[in-house]
Amino acid sequence: MATTTKKPVLDRMMASRHRGDVFAKTCPSRSVMEHVTSRWGVLILVALLEATMRFSELRRRVDGVSEKMLAQTLQALEGDGFLVREVYPVIPPRVDYSLTPLGREVAKHVEALADWIEENMPRVSKARAARAAAKAER
Amino acid sequence: MATTTKKPVLDRMMASRHRGDVFAKTCPSRSVMEHVTSRWGVLILVALLEATMRFSELRRRVDGVSEKMLAQTLQALEGDGFLVREVYPVIPPRVDYSLTPLGREVAKHVEALADWIEENMPRVSKARAARAAAKAER
Repeated sequence: MATTTKKPVLDRMMASRHRGDVFAKTCPSRSVMEHVTSRWGVLILVALLEATMRFSELRRRVDGVSEKMLAQTLQALEGDGFLVREVYPVIPPRVDYSLTPLGREVAKHVEALADWIEENMPRVSKARAARAAAKAER
Repeated sequence: MATTTKKPVLDRMMASRHRGDVFAKTCPSRSVMEHVTSRWGVLILVALLEATMRFSELRRRVDGVSEKMLAQTLQALEGDGFLVREVYPVIPPRVDYSLTPLGREVAKHVEALADWIEENMPRVSKARAARAAAKAER
Protein backbone atom coordinates (compact mmCIF):
# COMPACT_ATOMS: atom_id res chain seq x y z
CA MET A 1 0.00 0.00 0.00
CA ALA A 2 2.71 2.41 0.96
CA THR A 3 4.51 1.87 -2.38
CA THR A 4 1.28 2.53 -4.36
CA THR A 5 0.70 5.91 -2.77
CA LYS A 6 4.35 6.79 -3.18
CA LYS A 7 4.41 5.96 -6.90
CA PRO A 8 3.26 9.35 -8.31
CA VAL A 9 5.80 11.14 -6.14
CA LEU A 10 8.54 8.90 -7.50
CA ASP A 11 7.31 9.48 -11.05
CA ARG A 12 7.54 13.20 -10.57
CA MET A 13 10.98 12.85 -9.06
CA MET A 14 12.12 10.78 -12.03
CA ALA A 15 10.58 13.22 -14.47
CA SER A 16 12.24 16.19 -12.85
CA ARG A 17 15.52 14.26 -12.82
CA HIS A 18 15.29 13.86 -16.57
CA ARG A 19 14.11 17.35 -17.42
CA GLY A 20 17.06 19.59 -18.13
CA ASP A 21 17.95 22.79 -16.25
CA VAL A 22 20.00 25.23 -18.31
CA PHE A 23 20.79 27.22 -15.16
CA ALA A 24 22.71 24.29 -13.66
CA LYS A 25 26.38 24.35 -14.62
CA THR A 26 26.66 20.57 -15.00
CA CYS A 27 23.37 19.89 -16.80
CA PRO A 28 23.85 18.41 -20.29
CA SER A 29 21.08 20.70 -21.57
CA ARG A 30 23.65 23.52 -21.48
CA SER A 31 25.71 21.86 -24.21
CA VAL A 32 22.57 21.34 -26.33
CA MET A 33 21.76 25.02 -25.88
CA GLU A 34 25.30 25.86 -27.00
CA HIS A 35 25.17 23.70 -30.13
CA VAL A 36 21.80 25.13 -31.12
CA THR A 37 22.62 28.78 -30.40
CA SER A 38 26.22 28.78 -31.61
CA ARG A 39 26.99 31.31 -34.33
CA TRP A 40 26.81 28.67 -37.06
CA GLY A 41 24.33 26.32 -35.36
CA VAL A 42 21.60 28.96 -35.60
CA LEU A 43 22.14 29.54 -39.31
CA ILE A 44 22.44 25.84 -40.19
CA LEU A 45 19.18 25.00 -38.41
CA VAL A 46 17.29 27.83 -40.10
CA ALA A 47 18.78 26.94 -43.51
CA LEU A 48 17.80 23.27 -43.18
CA LEU A 49 14.22 24.25 -42.27
CA GLU A 50 14.00 25.55 -45.84
CA ALA A 51 15.38 22.42 -47.54
CA THR A 52 17.66 19.41 -47.43
CA MET A 53 21.10 20.61 -48.47
CA ARG A 54 24.47 19.30 -49.50
CA PHE A 55 27.61 20.38 -47.71
CA SER A 56 28.54 22.78 -50.52
CA GLU A 57 25.05 24.31 -50.58
CA LEU A 58 25.16 24.90 -46.82
CA ARG A 59 28.60 26.42 -47.20
CA ARG A 60 27.20 28.97 -49.66
CA ARG A 61 24.00 29.64 -47.70
CA VAL A 62 25.78 30.22 -44.39
CA ASP A 63 27.80 33.26 -45.43
CA GLY A 64 31.27 33.34 -43.86
CA VAL A 65 31.49 29.84 -42.38
CA SER A 66 34.74 27.90 -42.86
CA GLU A 67 34.70 24.25 -43.98
CA LYS A 68 36.09 23.22 -40.63
CA MET A 69 33.48 25.07 -38.55
CA LEU A 70 30.66 23.87 -40.78
CA ALA A 71 31.77 20.23 -40.45
CA GLN A 72 32.21 20.60 -36.69
CA THR A 73 28.81 22.21 -36.14
CA LEU A 74 27.04 19.66 -38.35
CA GLN A 75 28.65 16.89 -36.33
CA ALA A 76 27.49 18.38 -33.01
CA LEU A 77 23.92 18.80 -34.28
CA GLU A 78 23.94 15.27 -35.69
CA GLY A 79 25.16 13.95 -32.32
CA ASP A 80 22.19 15.58 -30.57
CA GLY A 81 19.80 13.89 -33.01
CA PHE A 82 18.80 17.14 -34.75
CA LEU A 83 19.96 16.21 -38.23
CA VAL A 84 20.82 13.23 -40.38
CA ARG A 85 23.57 12.87 -42.91
CA GLU A 86 22.90 10.72 -45.93
CA VAL A 87 25.77 9.55 -48.10
CA TYR A 88 25.02 8.50 -51.68
CA PRO A 89 27.54 6.14 -53.29
CA VAL A 90 27.97 8.16 -56.45
CA ILE A 91 30.99 9.76 -58.07
CA PRO A 92 31.72 12.44 -56.92
CA PRO A 93 30.28 11.40 -53.49
CA ARG A 94 27.13 13.21 -52.52
CA VAL A 95 26.18 13.94 -48.89
CA ASP A 96 22.81 15.36 -47.96
CA TYR A 97 21.94 16.96 -44.63
CA SER A 98 18.37 17.21 -43.39
CA LEU A 99 16.59 17.88 -40.12
CA THR A 100 15.02 15.07 -38.08
CA PRO A 101 11.54 15.66 -36.58
CA LEU A 102 13.34 16.57 -33.31
CA GLY A 103 15.56 18.98 -35.25
CA ARG A 104 12.59 20.63 -36.95
CA GLU A 105 11.02 21.33 -33.55
CA VAL A 106 14.07 23.03 -32.12
CA ALA A 107 14.83 24.81 -35.43
CA LYS A 108 11.38 26.42 -35.39
CA HIS A 109 12.16 28.06 -32.05
CA VAL A 110 15.53 29.24 -33.36
CA GLU A 111 13.85 30.60 -36.48
CA ALA A 112 11.26 32.49 -34.42
CA LEU A 113 14.11 34.15 -32.53
CA ALA A 114 16.03 34.97 -35.72
CA ASP A 115 12.87 36.38 -37.30
CA TRP A 116 12.21 38.58 -34.29
CA ILE A 117 15.76 39.95 -34.43
CA GLU A 118 15.62 40.60 -38.18
CA GLU A 119 12.26 42.36 -37.89
CA ASN A 120 13.24 44.43 -34.89
CA MET A 121 16.69 45.51 -36.07
CA PRO A 122 15.45 49.09 -36.61
CA ARG A 123 14.47 49.28 -32.92
CA VAL A 124 17.81 47.83 -31.81
CA SER A 125 19.75 50.18 -34.11
CA LYS A 126 17.83 53.11 -32.62
CA ALA A 127 18.73 51.98 -29.10
CA ARG A 128 22.38 51.57 -30.12
CA ALA A 129 22.48 55.05 -31.65
CA ALA A 130 20.85 56.63 -28.58
CA ARG A 131 23.40 54.99 -26.33
CA ALA A 132 26.30 56.10 -28.51
CA ALA A 133 24.93 59.69 -28.45
CA ALA A 134 24.52 59.62 -24.66
CA LYS A 135 28.11 58.41 -24.28
CA ALA A 136 29.40 61.15 -26.59
CA GLU A 137 27.60 63.80 -24.51
CA ARG A 138 29.24 62.77 -21.26
CA MET B 1 1.62 60.72 -60.62
CA ALA B 2 4.64 58.56 -61.28
CA THR B 3 6.02 59.25 -57.80
CA THR B 4 2.70 58.33 -56.17
CA THR B 5 2.56 54.92 -57.78
CA LYS B 6 6.21 54.32 -57.00
CA LYS B 7 5.84 55.18 -53.32
CA PRO B 8 4.82 51.74 -52.02
CA VAL B 9 7.71 50.17 -53.90
CA LEU B 10 10.12 52.62 -52.27
CA ASP B 11 8.56 51.95 -48.87
CA ARG B 12 9.13 48.25 -49.32
CA MET B 13 12.68 48.87 -50.43
CA MET B 14 13.35 51.03 -47.38
CA ALA B 15 11.77 48.46 -45.09
CA SER B 16 13.81 45.65 -46.56
CA ARG B 17 16.94 47.77 -46.25
CA HIS B 18 16.28 48.18 -42.55
CA ARG B 19 15.19 44.63 -41.82
CA GLY B 20 18.13 42.52 -40.70
CA ASP B 21 19.39 39.38 -42.43
CA VAL B 22 21.24 37.02 -40.11
CA PHE B 23 22.54 35.08 -43.12
CA ALA B 24 24.52 38.09 -44.35
CA LYS B 25 28.02 38.18 -42.89
CA THR B 26 28.10 41.96 -42.48
CA CYS B 27 24.55 42.50 -41.17
CA PRO B 28 24.49 43.99 -37.64
CA SER B 29 21.67 41.58 -36.76
CA ARG B 30 24.33 38.88 -36.47
CA SER B 31 25.94 40.61 -33.51
CA VAL B 32 22.53 40.99 -31.83
CA MET B 33 21.94 37.28 -32.37
CA GLU B 34 25.32 36.58 -30.78
CA HIS B 35 24.67 38.73 -27.71
CA VAL B 36 21.27 37.16 -27.19
CA THR B 37 22.33 33.55 -27.76
CA SER B 38 25.74 33.69 -26.08
CA ARG B 39 26.24 31.19 -23.29
CA TRP B 40 25.56 33.82 -20.61
CA GLY B 41 23.24 36.06 -22.62
CA VAL B 42 20.61 33.32 -22.76
CA LEU B 43 20.67 32.75 -19.01
CA ILE B 44 20.71 36.46 -18.11
CA LEU B 45 17.68 37.18 -20.31
CA VAL B 46 15.70 34.26 -18.89
CA ALA B 47 16.66 35.20 -15.32
CA LEU B 48 15.59 38.83 -15.79
CA LEU B 49 12.21 37.70 -17.17
CA GLU B 50 11.57 36.38 -13.66
CA ALA B 51 12.56 39.55 -11.81
CA THR B 52 14.71 42.67 -11.62
CA MET B 53 18.02 41.61 -10.11
CA ARG B 54 21.16 43.07 -8.65
CA PHE B 55 24.55 42.11 -10.00
CA SER B 56 25.18 39.75 -7.08
CA GLU B 57 21.79 38.08 -7.48
CA LEU B 58 22.43 37.49 -11.18
CA ARG B 59 25.86 36.11 -10.33
CA ARG B 60 24.24 33.50 -8.07
CA ARG B 61 21.38 32.70 -10.45
CA VAL B 62 23.61 32.21 -13.48
CA ASP B 63 25.60 29.25 -12.15
CA GLY B 64 29.24 29.33 -13.24
CA VAL B 65 29.52 32.84 -14.69
CA SER B 66 32.59 34.91 -13.78
CA GLU B 67 32.26 38.56 -12.68
CA LYS B 68 34.04 39.66 -15.82
CA MET B 69 31.82 37.70 -18.21
CA LEU B 70 28.67 38.77 -16.39
CA ALA B 71 29.66 42.45 -16.59
CA GLN B 72 30.63 42.13 -20.25
CA THR B 73 27.41 40.37 -21.26
CA LEU B 74 25.24 42.83 -19.33
CA GLN B 75 26.98 45.68 -21.11
CA ALA B 76 26.36 44.16 -24.56
CA LEU B 77 22.66 43.58 -23.78
CA GLU B 78 22.34 47.10 -22.40
CA GLY B 79 23.95 48.47 -25.57
CA ASP B 80 21.32 46.72 -27.71
CA GLY B 81 18.55 48.30 -25.62
CA PHE B 82 17.45 45.02 -24.02
CA LEU B 83 18.10 45.98 -20.43
CA VAL B 84 18.53 48.99 -18.18
CA ARG B 85 20.90 49.47 -15.31
CA GLU B 86 19.73 51.59 -12.42
CA VAL B 87 22.22 52.87 -9.90
CA TYR B 88 20.95 53.89 -6.44
CA PRO B 89 23.15 56.35 -4.53
CA VAL B 90 23.22 54.37 -1.30
CA ILE B 91 26.06 52.88 0.70
CA PRO B 92 27.02 50.25 -0.33
CA PRO B 93 26.03 51.23 -3.92
CA ARG B 94 23.13 49.28 -5.31
CA VAL B 95 22.72 48.50 -9.03
CA ASP B 96 19.55 46.94 -10.41
CA TYR B 97 19.23 45.31 -13.81
CA SER B 98 15.88 44.91 -15.54
CA LEU B 99 14.57 44.18 -19.00
CA THR B 100 13.18 46.91 -21.24
CA PRO B 101 9.96 46.18 -23.20
CA LEU B 102 12.23 45.36 -26.19
CA GLY B 103 14.26 43.04 -23.97
CA ARG B 104 11.15 41.27 -22.68
CA GLU B 105 10.11 40.51 -26.25
CA VAL B 106 13.39 38.94 -27.24
CA ALA B 107 13.76 37.19 -23.86
CA LYS B 108 10.43 35.43 -24.36
CA HIS B 109 11.72 33.83 -27.56
CA VAL B 110 14.93 32.79 -25.81
CA GLU B 111 12.91 31.36 -22.93
CA ALA B 112 10.70 29.35 -25.32
CA LEU B 113 13.85 27.82 -26.82
CA ALA B 114 15.36 27.08 -23.39
CA ASP B 115 12.07 25.54 -22.24
CA TRP B 116 11.93 23.32 -25.31
CA ILE B 117 15.48 22.10 -24.68
CA GLU B 118 14.85 21.43 -20.99
CA GLU B 119 11.65 19.52 -21.72
CA ASN B 120 13.12 17.51 -24.56
CA MET B 121 16.42 16.57 -22.92
CA PRO B 122 15.27 12.93 -22.53
CA ARG B 123 14.81 12.73 -26.33
CA VAL B 124 18.20 14.33 -26.97
CA SER B 125 19.90 12.05 -24.43
CA LYS B 126 18.34 9.04 -26.15
CA ALA B 127 19.66 10.23 -29.53
CA ARG B 128 23.11 10.80 -28.02
CA ALA B 129 23.14 7.31 -26.49
CA ALA B 130 22.01 5.67 -29.75
CA ARG B 131 24.78 7.41 -31.63
CA ALA B 132 27.40 6.40 -29.07
CA ALA B 133 26.20 2.78 -29.31
CA ALA B 134 26.30 2.83 -33.13
CA LYS B 135 29.85 4.20 -33.02
CA ALA B 136 30.93 1.48 -30.57
CA GLU B 137 29.55 -1.22 -32.86
CA ARG B 138 31.58 -0.12 -35.84
